[in-house]
Amino acid sequence: MALEFYWASGSPYSWRVMLALEYKRLPYVSHLLEMSRQEHKAPHMLRLNPRGQLPVLKDGDYVCFESLAILYYLDLKYPEPPLFGRSPEEAGTIMRVICEYQNNAEPELMKVLRAVFSSKLKERFEEITEAMHKLANEARTIEGRLSKSDWIVGEHVSALDFVVFPGIQLLLRALNRAEAVELRSRFLPMEFNYPALARWLSRVEALPGYERTYPPHWRTPSAG
Amino acid sequence: MALEFYWASGSPYSWRVMLALEYKRLPYVSHLLEMSRQEHKAPHMLRLNPRGQLPVLKDGDYVCFESLAILYYLDLKYPEPPLFGRSPEEAGTIMRVICEYQNNAEPELMKVLRAVFSSKLKERFEEITEAMHKLANEARTIEGRLSKSDWIVGEHVSALDFVVFPGIQLLLRALNRAEAVELRSRFLPMEFNYPALARWLSRVEALPGYERTYPPHWRTPSAG
Repeated sequence: MALEFYWASGSPYSWRVMLALEYKRLPYVSHLLEMSRQEHKAPHMLRLNPRGQLPVLKDGDYVCFESLAILYYLDLKYPEPPLFGRSPEEAGTIMRVICEYQNNAEPELMKVLRAVFSSKLKERFEEITEAMHKLANEARTIEGRLSKSDWIVGEHVSALDFVVFPGIQLLLRALNRAEAVELRSRFLPMEFNYPALARWLSRVEALPGYERTYPPHWRTPSAG
Repeated sequence: MALEFYWASGSPYSWRVMLALEYKRLPYVSHLLEMSRQEHKAPHMLRLNPRGQLPVLKDGDYVCFESLAILYYLDLKYPEPPLFGRSPEEAGTIMRVICEYQNNAEPELMKVLRAVFSSKLKERFEEITEAMHKLANEARTIEGRLSKSDWIVGEHVSALDFVVFPGIQLLLRALNRAEAVELRSRFLPMEFNYPALARWLSRVEALPGYERTYPPHWRTPSAG
């Protein structure tokens, strides 16, 4: 029975799982939900995830949500190619850097994204500048790792690359908004400020199946 | 070579790892650090974890930090008894509920703990009442699980029990402070409001080696 995957376009949490599904070449039935129409809160979705959040993965009778848990489940159920390395040490380090990203970079990133996409950048400028400063430090650490290896931990793509990639893409999208012009100089052009990170972005984009993971509504230039 | 474990008394993140070390009956050298004396920021500690956070585990030449990553590493390196279940489905669900706890309960818990332990409860009363309300909902969900099984997921203790347990203990400790009297009624007495959770607390406390994990400075009645 094929996997069923419920997701939203442009959700970083959905995107990371989709990258993993494609990387493992797992066939799946794609259910793209419209959050603006509250499709993720429909009764049949709340039966799958009472919190009404995406993504949700259904594998036969088994249901899983929370993106990190889905990545972990997929890797145990369909081990090749691995998402969490090939040794306990590699796995521990991949999980450690995922936790570091989630605890240190993601909260700052979310502040920036929320402010830009809700057009509240001006009134929160001080808070957002501070968030960008912390984000830049975290990006610098990842840049350091990527200047030594092709992927964030070691010589193979891992769950960590898929956790971080959508966040960077969303940040770039936010910074390209007209109102974010003053936040740009620290990050952009990426080829200049974070050359290893820029090369890694292209590397992820070159993975087989990547095109299928790209948020469909981003292909329309006018969309938010 | 024995494991080396660097930790702080009363840190929930340290406590969860220590519970796992004892549960797996792994011998370890205990390094109890005094955070009030900044021992976790000493140069030799920053070499192990540049963020200067605890806990840190050293296993031979391998160093890991971030409590969830340490739990994950320990389980891969020393699989018996397992911390993440015995099937991909069980593992996925344990990780899912850990993520749910970290994303939904823990931020609210931290607000309450910070306000109580920094004696800022009065000035933040509205925010803390709201946090207690959300926490009570999360506790209700866990209560529901524990009314059906001995452990939070399934019939065996898991990493999830160790992730949640120190948080509940810290909450109880905060609620017992004189200034928290108005927050108490929703939770206490636990035997009345959350009977399954109360029985589960005793179950964790009865695990072999539990006594060694109990925060040493909590044994002094006057301590904070």
